[in-house]
Amino acid sequence: MNTLKKKVLAANLSLPEHQLITFTWGNVSGIDREKGIMVIKPSGVEYANMSLDDMVVVDIQSGKVVEGNKKPSSDTDTHLALYHAFPDIGGIVHTHSRHATIWSQAGKDLMPLGTTHADYFYGAIPCTRPMHDDEIEGSYEHNTGSVIIETFRQRGISPNQIPAVLVNSHGPFAWGTNPANAVHNAVVLEEIAYMNLFTQQLQPHLTAMQQTLLDKHFLRKHGANAYYGQ
Amino acid sequence: MNTLKKKVLAANLSLPEHQLITFTWGNVSGIDREKGIMVIKPSGVEYANMSLDDMVVVDIQSGKVVEGNKKPSSDTDTHLALYHAFPDIGGIVHTHSRHATIWSQAGKDLMPLGTTHADYFYGAIPCTRPMHDDEIEGSYEHNTGSVIIETFRQRGISPNQIPAVLVNSHGPFAWGTNPANAVHNAVVLEEIAYMNLFTQQLQPHLTAMQQTLLDKHFLRKHGANAYYGQ
Amino acid sequence: MNTLKKKVLAANLSLPEHQLITFTWGNVSGIDREKGIMVIKPSGVEYANMSLDDMVVVDIQSGKVVEGNKKPSSDTDTHLALYHAFPDIGGIVHTHSRHATIWSQAGKDLMPLGTTHADYFYGAIPCTRPMHDDEIEGSYEHNTGSVIIETFRQRGISPNQIPAVLVNSHGPFAWGTNPANAVHNAVVLEEIAYMNLFTQQLQPHLTAMQQTLLDKHFLRKHGANAYYGQ
Amino acid sequence: MNTLKKKVLAANLSLPEHQLITFTWGNVSGIDREKGIMVIKPSGVEYANMSLDDMVVVDIQSGKVVEGNKKPSSDTDTHLALYHAFPDIGGIVHTHSRHATIWSQAGKDLMPLGTTHADYFYGAIPCTRPMHDDEIEGSYEHNTGSVIIETFRQRGISPNQIPAVLVNSHGPFAWGTNPANAVHNAVVLEEIAYMNLFTQQLQPHLTAMQQTLLDKHFLRKHGANAYYGQ
Repeated sequence: MNTLKKKVLAANLSLPEHQLITFTWGNVSGIDREKGIMVIKPSGVEYANMSLDDMVVVDIQSGKVVEGNKKPSSDTDTHLALYHAFPDIGGIVHTHSRHATIWSQAGKDLMPLGTTHADYFYGAIPCTRPMHDDEIEGSYEHNTGSVIIETFRQRGISPNQIPAVLVNSHGPFAWGTNPANAVHNAVVLEEIAYMNLFTQQLQPHLTAMQQTLLDKHFLRKHGANAYYGQ
Repeated sequence: MNTLKKKVLAANLSLPEHQLITFTWGNVSGIDREKGIMVIKPSGVEYANMSLDDMVVVDIQSGKVVEGNKKPSSDTDTHLALYHAFPDIGGIVHTHSRHATIWSQAGKDLMPLGTTHADYFYGAIPCTRPMHDDEIEGSYEHNTGSVIIETFRQRGISPNQIPAVLVNSHGPFAWGTNPANAVHNAVVLEEIAYMNLFTQQLQPHLTAMQQTLLDKHFLRKHGANAYYGQ
Repeated sequence: MNTLKKKVLAANLSLPEHQLITFTWGNVSGIDREKGIMVIKPSGVEYANMSLDDMVVVDIQSGKVVEGNKKPSSDTDTHLALYHAFPDIGGIVHTHSRHATIWSQAGKDLMPLGTTHADYFYGAIPCTRPMHDDEIEGSYEHNTGSVIIETFRQRGISPNQIPAVLVNSHGPFAWGTNPANAVHNAVVLEEIAYMNLFTQQLQPHLTAMQQTLLDKHFLRKHGANAYYGQ
Repeated sequence: MNTLKKKVLAANLSLPEHQLITFTWGNVSGIDREKGIMVIKPSGVEYANMSLDDMVVVDIQSGKVVEGNKKPSSDTDTHLALYHAFPDIGGIVHTHSRHATIWSQAGKDLMPLGTTHADYFYGAIPCTRPMHDDEIEGSYEHNTGSVIIETFRQRGISPNQIPAVLVNSHGPFAWGTNPANAVHNAVVLEEIAYMNLFTQQLQPHLTAMQQTLLDKHFLRKHGANAYYGQ
């Protein structure tokens, strides 16, 4: 448990280093599927003062805190929903990073426009539909997870190949094989979000990049025959 | 008095840390309503050299300096006007932060477009009308306060629910329960101002976010049943 | 002479601190009108290694180096032309700061759009006309000065009230009462250039700010009855 | 060999200092044409941990590693192709720097719009055509070099006068007389890419700068009669 706590703490502390967050606007979690627990950032604690003991351990079936003195992040139920639906992921991060949030607020998918995207995401990064009033007024954080999962299922997107989403009118979630990898993907997402914003301003009629180039870049890093390293 | 001075000094010194100011273009004040005094940054002193003794104590009824060797900020009369009109606020900050100033110069309200906004501001952040010539030529700094107050009253906006304003052709003021909270809100305002600028470029026909989502986010943090922490 | 050298060195070293330059793309000079000399940055020396002995002293009548082992900045003749034409200025700075250069490349004046501008510049900051081929092929650096001077004279602009210019297809020059003040004005120019770029994107039909507000802000800092300090 | 390794290591380590890269998204190489070897960054090693021993020495005829324990950068074949075709260059750098990548993604040349450009690049910086499917599916990294070379040959561009290229849907390559000079040019390219993006937004109908001014600035630095230093 301590190892996972350390990883989750380190991943949380890397958020300000990567300039992905303002104040406490972000959280990273990690899962130990064998032990059936998730470790997540506590609610509202400042990054400068965060310690290992602040990490909160949550039972992934009941959603209850099983270790820790602090309240888990308010987004806990979103994290739990994603871990349940996406069986291969080991870490999740949520931020309000500026440019990914801009796309979330605009309600638009991030089309693949170049190899930076293709190196990490095998197609468009989807933006969820607006949530219905009853979804917002009900179990809001859980339902935020549900609408993400619905988006991936209805559009036939693999969460392993597109490890991020834009939540409409809200901001990004990213995930990965572990907490550090989730943060890595969140950094890439923010880079892509910045570049696509201005690429589309420069060339408004741009369509998605060539499929062959997308295949080449994604598969040389992530396919069975991966060989890539810059 | 010394406690309030320390809080006001700390809040002023946090402005360059949050990259909200260039040179001395900003000022924070705090109020002690029981003692009837306001503490404010001195005029024209550089942040690098600012000390506790530089803070200026002003009587909130007479507007006269009651302690301190320096001249109070030129914006003192604007701060005083706001403290008189908005009885619940404990700190005020004025900056020329880049993106909030851009919206002020454009003369446009900041519409709520996402949950970052909704977590702090319960609706649009208004931009004041241009001041009339006689308001500018008369008691300009006091009248700057008056036009802010007029904006909130005429549009039925609560300063407790929208703790910031954009002054037309000028820049933002933000406030809060104390000086640090005012600066916190100024940081959020600047984030929102940046994100909305490019969100509206990306999606020019965007309207305000769903009311249900605005309610959910504002009220889970600020309502009677607040439970939120990221 | 040593005092002026120190001031010029300090002003040059402040350019990277204010993030106004890349590599060696900038230079500051100062003048001692009584002694008839100008001190300027040497040509091509990196800021990290610049010392007092690198400063070059130039006779303002002959334009010849009277002290120093290095070549003076290639822009020396532009500086000299401005000192001759603008009798009240004591320091000059040239940079390729990003946003002021963007306006120079676009060949557009910087209209006054808000009080940040009005606090320092009493009207639009002009962009020079494109230089004629013979001006470029002849004494180019001297003629760069001439076209700046022509702009101010033909448009009736006072260099004391508008202490900066955008050189067409090139970048900004700013000046002031001394080298530090010149750099101060260059920082303000860059701030304004950034803010106006996006203000005009947000509100394309914007005209210049109210004259009354421009008067108020400029004159409360720079007029005979100045009282201002933020 | 050790001298070249040191230069290549130093040039690679300067990439994060110049904020040209995220994670390991970049690589610098240098060539010793007499010895027939190229030194290049290893594949996937983090900049924070990179040491002299990590540098990989590659035979420029066979493309085989002749010294070093690590795999050379995946982009090795692109570097080799450029060294073979451009006989005067001594160093090459590839990055995904934000604004140069934006132009690559938009598939547009960088027109010369000002003297910042003219000081380093004697005309437009070209963007390559999209690669054909068979070029992508074949020896992709080698073919990336080929399409760059084709662009320069077909358009009659000298790689000595335009030491950079934008690879379509990918990102920039820059080169120079040695590894440090290549990185220098990559920094300039990123500056120009930023400034041109917003210059063209501000003045959409802008054409290239005057040829006389382009001649003057490029030739005073790079021509037979160069005299320039800022």
